[in-house]
Amino acid sequence: MEKLYVIKVGGNIIDDPLALSAFLKDFASVYEKKILVHGGGKLATKLADQLGVPQKLIEGRRITDAETLKLITMVYAGYINKNIVVQLQAHSCQAIGICGADGNLILAHKRNHPTIDYGYVGDIDRVSADRFIQLLTLGFIPVIAPLTHDGKGSLLNTNADTIAQEISKSMSASFDVTLIYSFEKSGVLTNADDDRTVIDNINPESYRELKEKKLIFAGMIPKLDNAFRALDHGVKQVIVGKAEHLRQLIVNAAGTKITNET
Amino acid sequence: MEKLYVIKVGGNIIDDPLALSAFLKDFASVYEKKILVHGGGKLATKLADQLGVPQKLIEGRRITDAETLKLITMVYAGYINKNIVVQLQAHSCQAIGICGADGNLILAHKRNHPTIDYGYVGDIDRVSADRFIQLLTLGFIPVIAPLTHDGKGSLLNTNADTIAQEISKSMSASFDVTLIYSFEKSGVLTNADDDRTVIDNINPESYRELKEKKLIFAGMIPKLDNAFRALDHGVKQVIVGKAEHLRQLIVNAAGTKITNET
Repeated sequence: MEKLYVIKVGGNIIDDPLALSAFLKDFASVYEKKILVHGGGKLATKLADQLGVPQKLIEGRRITDAETLKLITMVYAGYINKNIVVQLQAHSCQAIGICGADGNLILAHKRNHPTIDYGYVGDIDRVSADRFIQLLTLGFIPVIAPLTHDGKGSLLNTNADTIAQEISKSMSASFDVTLIYSFEKSGVLTNADDDRTVIDNINPESYRELKEKKLIFAGMIPKLDNAFRALDHGVKQVIVGKAEHLRQLIVNAAGTKITNET
Repeated sequence: MEKLYVIKVGGNIIDDPLALSAFLKDFASVYEKKILVHGGGKLATKLADQLGVPQKLIEGRRITDAETLKLITMVYAGYINKNIVVQLQAHSCQAIGICGADGNLILAHKRNHPTIDYGYVGDIDRVSADRFIQLLTLGFIPVIAPLTHDGKGSLLNTNADTIAQEISKSMSASFDVTLIYSFEKSGVLTNADDDRTVIDNINPESYRELKEKKLIFAGMIPKLDNAFRALDHGVKQVIVGKAEHLRQLIVNAAGTKITNET
């Protein structure tokens, strides 16, 4: 099967123009079919502060009310997405910047939670793999902003890691999919403050052990759970690593490789 | 040849949620192949005020500096574009919201003017008709935000009327193109304040006459010049009219029809 890279870029990279620019140059040079999913960065929060839009928290969870959704749509689907596209185009990469509402690519529903109303936050129901395949076949490189829709007229704020995972899963019937989570760290670390403590390989067994011994930073657990869900649904491998090492991550020469292999 | 409607929606409609919503319902019901180009509305200016970004004018012309371009990208390609897409999707219209940078659809250059530096304002060099045709063939309905790019990494603020005209021209080799300019007025009026003074038909001869007698509101002249340029390059007809009359505009039962026919 043909290779496909689904690459998520997030963390501080989104807010660091030089790091983002270097990453995009490397992304453009990836020869195989590829999809880029980007995170939201900190600009939306900054803009909310400037405009006096209060950030609502319930039980410590961030809520996406209508005003916040508006800001997120401007920043994620507008500013960040188009700035990525225009840079990739300058490297002759045929980027097309879209979100889950475009072409009905990613259908979701408003999160249903027994005690917390998250507002306009989406949990994914379905990825239109056919539509992604059509775009890839035409030579377009999809650049996905972390928004989905409910099919009834509402955009929904959706976690970019989860979007990358769901796209990877849906494409695994047609491609040999590698999912890459890239950010400012060198991989999954045993000491979150020490970039030299990268764990080279994680499989389900070692993951259980690392969690028991509390050797994994709590913030990494959702990302790794996402990674294993992807592997359980046909994705070949998941690689976690530094955005500026993208060329090495692609060839398994850096970062943490996560597989179901024992 | 197959019919294609290139429909521009602008003016106050963009800032009027109810009018926009009604227009989008009608747009979704247009059976033939179609492309939507939307204007920018007033939200970007409002946001600039709120954020204290000064609106620069030189010789009465609005300048797009880097900060303004950022706001415009957020509002046009983010908020407005995705709100249109998500509503069209709710009507089962396979909208895909993009701008001229996406897929390298519309290449432009920074405006070259002997005395005024307009900043990040683009004049169009080339529309990728092939890319539009590929998207239409797959059943996607392109929804275009008024931004282009220079191929060297800069987005450019570009007039939506001109974008609609250039797309129409580029598609006229492959389709029987009708270009529709829809906004809050009922058509080209002899009295800008009286919606009953619609001119039913304009051709080059009557246009010259209307201009000589100063029977056309100055603000309409660039739109009409755009219309005639489109007709001179293969576009079949241009219709100017009220967004809420879209269904009648499509069948030539409302608005002003502009043709080269004498």
